[in-house]
Amino acid sequence: MLIREADTEDWHAVWPFFRTIVRAGETFTCPTDLSEQDGRDWWLLSAPHRTVVAVDDAGTVLGTAKMNTNHLGNGSHIASAGYMVDPAYSGRGVGRALCAYTVEWARTAGFRAMQFNAVVETNVHAVKLYRSLGFEILGTLPEGFRHPSKGYVGLHIMHRTL
Amino acid sequence: MLIREADTEDWHAVWPFFRTIVRAGETFTCPTDLSEQDGRDWWLLSAPHRTVVAVDDAGTVLGTAKMNTNHLGNGSHIASAGYMVDPAYSGRGVGRALCAYTVEWARTAGFRAMQFNAVVETNVHAVKLYRSLGFEILGTLPEGFRHPSKGYVGLHIMHRTL
Repeated sequence: MLIREADTEDWHAVWPFFRTIVRAGETFTCPTDLSEQDGRDWWLLSAPHRTVVAVDDAGTVLGTAKMNTNHLGNGSHIASAGYMVDPAYSGRGVGRALCAYTVEWARTAGFRAMQFNAVVETNVHAVKLYRSLGFEILGTLPEGFRHPSKGYVGLHIMHRTL
Repeated sequence: MLIREADTEDWHAVWPFFRTIVRAGETFTCPTDLSEQDGRDWWLLSAPHRTVVAVDDAGTVLGTAKMNTNHLGNGSHIASAGYMVDPAYSGRGVGRALCAYTVEWARTAGFRAMQFNAVVETNVHAVKLYRSLGFEILGTLPEGFRHPSKGYVGLHIMHRTL
């Protein structure tokens, strides 16, 4: 698996699984009816922020990550990131590789910590992954997310120093 | 004191103290060199979000508040808000009146809770005010804010149900 910079061509490979994940409405606090254009504007970031894709040996896009500053001004030493893995390629360590990549990016770029603002507590796979990579739950917004089948569930704020 | 909708004319009264607060860099996670145009774009919100000013009997602007959705999609039942009070009129209950106003707005608009994403822990006056209005600290981002004289201090995430 290779992780490399995403270009606009990659978006055509990303959008089908990105749309599936967004439409399901179980893991992201973004509009579930997000248009392709809005999705691209949200996900494909410009420097100094970055968006990457994880690809296999055949060049198939398995997942994507974006990484960016979380707070501005005197909070600009805090980074954030987001990940989407094609469900067809789950369980292969793609999310882990992408998350580790963004942590390394943030450290190298001089950020002092990384924060996730809204991790849906029922997304237990993600919570477990982030914990295993050194993130801790700073707090949980009670009933912060309306899960389509589980009702109101918590939104974790997660954090790790770099 | 009256709290009413802010119009573009009010911005001329807001910007001088808004700039002072932003330039001081002690309380907001926004660029300290924020331009007037960027300040206006950040602060003056369009419907369904709102921006108000608190004025005295003579029509002098004492402070301002903005109120908005904090998360999107399946998190869109969580509101947020921000406040700036002219330091020349501090200690008169302006911040309290503005905060109470935004809580009432959020409740009436159907939000289920309100969240502040980044309350600088050394801003003890604000933290005390929010607590007195029913907000609790969900968690604190350690060293999340680089205070210009106190060094790295925590950023509270605060919350109250409506």
